Amino acid sequence: MLISDLGEQGLLNLIQPYCLPNTIGDDGAILHPPAGCELVVTIDVLVDGVHFSDRTTTPFDVGWRSVAANLSDLAAMGAVPLGITVGLSLPPTLPVVWLEQLYAGMQACLERYGTGIVGGDLTRSSVTTVAITALGAVSADRVIARSTAQVGDAIVVTGYHGDSHAGLQLLLDPELGQDASEFADTTDLQAHRKRLITAHQRPQPRLDILPILDSLRLNSSQIFPISGMDSSDGLADAIVQICRSSKVGATVSRSHLPISPALAQMFPDTALSSALYGGEDFELVLCLPQPIAIELVDRIGKGATIVGKITRLLTQTASRSTDIILVDDTGQYPTVQLDLQFGFKHF
Amino acid sequence: MLISDLGEQGLLNLIQPYCLPNTIGDDGAILHPPAGCELVVTIDVLVDGVHFSDRTTTPFDVGWRSVAANLSDLAAMGAVPLGITVGLSLPPTLPVVWLEQLYAGMQACLERYGTGIVGGDLTRSSVTTVAITALGAVSADRVIARSTAQVGDAIVVTGYHGDSHAGLQLLLDPELGQDASEFADTTDLQAHRKRLITAHQRPQPRLDILPILDSLRLNSSQIFPISGMDSSDGLADAIVQICRSSKVGATVSRSHLPISPALAQMFPDTALSSALYGGEDFELVLCLPQPIAIELVDRIGKGATIVGKITRLLTQTASRSTDIILVDDTGQYPTVQLDLQFGFKHF
Repeated sequence: MLISDLGEQGLLNLIQPYCLPNTIGDDGAILHPPAGCELVVTIDVLVDGVHFSDRTTTPFDVGWRSVAANLSDLAAMGAVPLGITVGLSLPPTLPVVWLEQLYAGMQACLERYGTGIVGGDLTRSSVTTVAITALGAVSADRVIARSTAQVGDAIVVTGYHGDSHAGLQLLLDPELGQDASEFADTTDLQAHRKRLITAHQRPQPRLDILPILDSLRLNSSQIFPISGMDSSDGLADAIVQICRSSKVGATVSRSHLPISPALAQMFPDTALSSALYGGEDFELVLCLPQPIAIELVDRIGKGATIVGKITRLLTQTASRSTDIILVDDTGQYPTVQLDLQFGFKHF
Repeated sequence: MLISDLGEQGLLNLIQPYCLPNTIGDDGAILHPPAGCELVVTIDVLVDGVHFSDRTTTPFDVGWRSVAANLSDLAAMGAVPLGITVGLSLPPTLPVVWLEQLYAGMQACLERYGTGIVGGDLTRSSVTTVAITALGAVSADRVIARSTAQVGDAIVVTGYHGDSHAGLQLLLDPELGQDASEFADTTDLQAHRKRLITAHQRPQPRLDILPILDSLRLNSSQIFPISGMDSSDGLADAIVQICRSSKVGATVSRSHLPISPALAQMFPDTALSSALYGGEDFELVLCLPQPIAIELVDRIGKGATIVGKITRLLTQTASRSTDIILVDDTGQYPTVQLDLQFGFKHF
């Protein structure tokens, strides 16, 4: 059965069960933000053939990923989700089951993070396009901004990087990594493969970090801003964006980059580049005082690490990245500059 | 110059001046909703070739109309705008001037209604798609819902209907209406033509109605709900939707339908059908007590009228429209049922 067979009312009937009760049926949805909170709005547009394809992503995963990307943006602002709206453009020739699976994937991710769909629009198009707007709430003193990183801050990364990119490579070329000779048996290989693919298909927005930050703030005698963003466009991109926005530099340690055993063992040659430039890991990159950073990393556990520190800007041209460097503690590799050059290009 | 020539950073630089200060540069935008207000969220997706085309709509008008449609949804909920987000998908081969004109059109409409762009996303696609989410604020006791129309309420329409549809017809076929023999000279004809085309290209969301409603509420000894929605999908559609949602019927008077002199004179044969089913007039259809309705129509002035009244539901099947009827006071035409049959179909 195709979208065009269902008709407009049929489509609305299909979608309605996936939406939060009492939000559908008017020109707009009504939300009740908690008193005294700022409102955070994020938007993300996914286009068939650009951000996903049937080759690598099931409709369920398109749904999951599109929600995860938006919730990650909320987490990166320190905001708790209030709900999302879904603007869909669909070819009339799309199978209805594709749409059902898309909504099932969105709902699975939303439920996991205690939120839901509050509104939407549905139109016809020649290209499947998913435009999601997420709304969140944050009290003014807990906003995480890119522009407030302080010289001396530790740079915390909340989890492994590069896994999503490696997972995508595996999906695109199933032959890849089959000959990884380091493995005693194929059990490890299969587990690694699965782990990397899951990292790509089901990224986890780090909303779980927010209560940890709250508790660290509460227990600290010090008042400190937390600066940061998510690493959706890559770890290097996040560090460079924070530095530019805060007008600071950064020293990142090559040996402290959070590379998973799976990535290191299956892609020894490209692990570093995937970790820095792969993107879509949806972890948080946070800058905060060293002692609190140590406690944060300890509380998060697996994959979380301090990758470097924020430094004073030495050059005057903030638009250049000469003050953002990757150093090697072992002396094996020369110091290099981090820049956006290898990041994901949208155009 | 094409979008692909500009690159991602160039595009962001181009768009930034159109956004409200201090809203860009983080993973999400921060808004400050007034204390004690509900938050209203609306979303609207416009697709090239479906909702607009170069033949009938300049990029400036695409921008204006896409914003107007969303602000109209806010007005239909009784909400004052807080800001919009813009999710754009663009072919790399699109001229940069198209994008500039789109933003100029959006900004012109936003400025007129005292609001602005607070965030966005920009991706590549084969089809130009504009997904706008608008955010508004309304106090709980002023929410306009579809579901609260009361038996005995007057049905108020805030302005002329059918003009936008007629304007589109004129744009699609410039020969149309050239032979309207009623006109003494071509001056009237040209003025009418221009008026209808403007109605299509630059619809005015009726946010101006909200302070009038506030003042009527303030001056009334009675506490009353105002039910309603906007007429973006046609006047008949709006009345049917309100009736279904409120589980009531309606009697609409043929001779009271708000048809402009321009529409009546240029399209005598199709004026009624355009007024009922044309759509995209972006007026409000409101149900409220008769005495207050009379005052409201008086305060709004030109085009505003009471088109009928809300009646008790006689049949048990609320999904049928047998209780929503169009009557002719002159006895010239038989009573007919209003339904969604001729409304705009999205699929």
